Amino acid sequence: MPLQDAITRYAQRVDEQLQQWLLQTTGPSPLLQEALGYSLLLGGKRMRPLLVYATGQALGAPLAACDRPAMAVELIHAYSLVHDDLPAMDDDDLRRGHPTCHKAFDEATAILVGDALQTLAFEVLADARQPAALQLVQSLAEASGSRGMVAGQMLDLQAEGRQLSLEQLEQLHNHKTGALIRAAVRMGALVSGADAATLQALDVYAAALGLAFQVQDDLLDVTGDAATLGKKTGADAQLNKATYPALLGVAGARSHAEALVERACASLEPLSGDWLLLQELARWSISRNH
Amino acid sequence: MPLQDAITRYAQRVDEQLQQWLLQTTGPSPLLQEALGYSLLLGGKRMRPLLVYATGQALGAPLAACDRPAMAVELIHAYSLVHDDLPAMDDDDLRRGHPTCHKAFDEATAILVGDALQTLAFEVLADARQPAALQLVQSLAEASGSRGMVAGQMLDLQAEGRQLSLEQLEQLHNHKTGALIRAAVRMGALVSGADAATLQALDVYAAALGLAFQVQDDLLDVTGDAATLGKKTGADAQLNKATYPALLGVAGARSHAEALVERACASLEPLSGDWLLLQELARWSISRNH
Repeated sequence: MPLQDAITRYAQRVDEQLQQWLLQTTGPSPLLQEALGYSLLLGGKRMRPLLVYATGQALGAPLAACDRPAMAVELIHAYSLVHDDLPAMDDDDLRRGHPTCHKAFDEATAILVGDALQTLAFEVLADARQPAALQLVQSLAEASGSRGMVAGQMLDLQAEGRQLSLEQLEQLHNHKTGALIRAAVRMGALVSGADAATLQALDVYAAALGLAFQVQDDLLDVTGDAATLGKKTGADAQLNKATYPALLGVAGARSHAEALVERACASLEPLSGDWLLLQELARWSISRNH
Repeated sequence: MPLQDAITRYAQRVDEQLQQWLLQTTGPSPLLQEALGYSLLLGGKRMRPLLVYATGQALGAPLAACDRPAMAVELIHAYSLVHDDLPAMDDDDLRRGHPTCHKAFDEATAILVGDALQTLAFEVLADARQPAALQLVQSLAEASGSRGMVAGQMLDLQAEGRQLSLEQLEQLHNHKTGALIRAAVRMGALVSGADAATLQALDVYAAALGLAFQVQDDLLDVTGDAATLGKKTGADAQLNKATYPALLGVAGARSHAEALVERACASLEPLSGDWLLLQELARWSISRNH
């Protein structure tokens, strides 16, 4: 399946699942329900669900076994964006072209929305019919918390106004975004009953993919077209932010990105199964212009 | 075991467990680790862990089977307090006599600490050796999210400056505090393999206990001794807050509390096992002066 078709198909599937879930689990506060739907379903590429589905499918798992982990990983991602946008954090008014949750509703609601979206991620997984349910909970929790995503956000806060080494920058990205990306791939593999060697190879893939995405984000901020990106460029340089181009130069950063993509694709070669989609995704991560 | 001894014993046990867990799971941010420990271990009665242990023990479960759910329910409670104290929410500078997390550290850290504590609750439960692990995850997630605790917090926000009926007030409390209390008792029962009838009876107990606690909190605000309470009284009346004494009068509220305790104790009568501790707890909930 061509990459763009897969992106569209899996995004639609997970959104239908999430929409259904929200409809069937209404609580006593309609306003909270509305804010949850707003924050969860408005825009976004659904990359992490794509990784769950693509990994699971390559290993022969039925789509249905991938639905809950796909939802769960998107719920964690969505919660993190709502909290990241808060005034005390990145203080953003817009996300994906729309008012952020605290602007569309209010700050207290946004705090609660983020909280409830995280809880929902684990509720979605906790079904006795779900293959590898407990392992999924464990993987997602480890990747999302104080040794994963939240730790990365803390490192990011602490990095403000400071210069980082390449090693420190990669540690930050590995935690802030890499951990959840690795969890998405891992969860697709767990529902398929993948063995330890396969899990290990997929982890190398996911780690390299995650970093490649970050390198390209940094490059687009320096070299990208503002209209295509949908935002002003040069923001990182203005903030004197530690980035790959700042540390390696533009050419050096491009080289680094290409090496990461090679590592990602190579890690899948020894595995049986059809890995074309994940390899295409790796290449797209550094060829994309937004 | 006398109630006060049990309170002390189980509080110490869960704190040792939590302390150990934090020590063994350090991530890349020492500051985040410090803030987590600060927010988790500084003061508090550990009522919810007590409910897990007391229920489990009454049904014959080993203490070790109760440790993870006891930790998990306290982690959810702790995360909710950190977020509740934030400037956009209740905006409190002090909790349990100490600076709140966002005052001791900063607001961004407090947002992340709350997030990480919630994630940790589910990570703690997700162990294949834990009896009823997946059911524990499900119970805790349902009780904590948009149909439970977070919904209650949302209702509380929406109730500000409004007068509520008794029915609306009870709905608010049932969600904001009752759901997690019911989950604590339920989790103690799940690890013991309790049957449906036992789970149902314990749910009646826990629901009544939760409300009784709230009624007494409201009464203490009107009638309590400021020095004993450790805070000024009359705050609720000043805020024109919907409370049990405001709706039923002081005598009516006391009556209501006694009826709730009777309901709680009566629900345990038909069950085999030693329920003295939980019954004592119910009576203490309305006899306490802080």
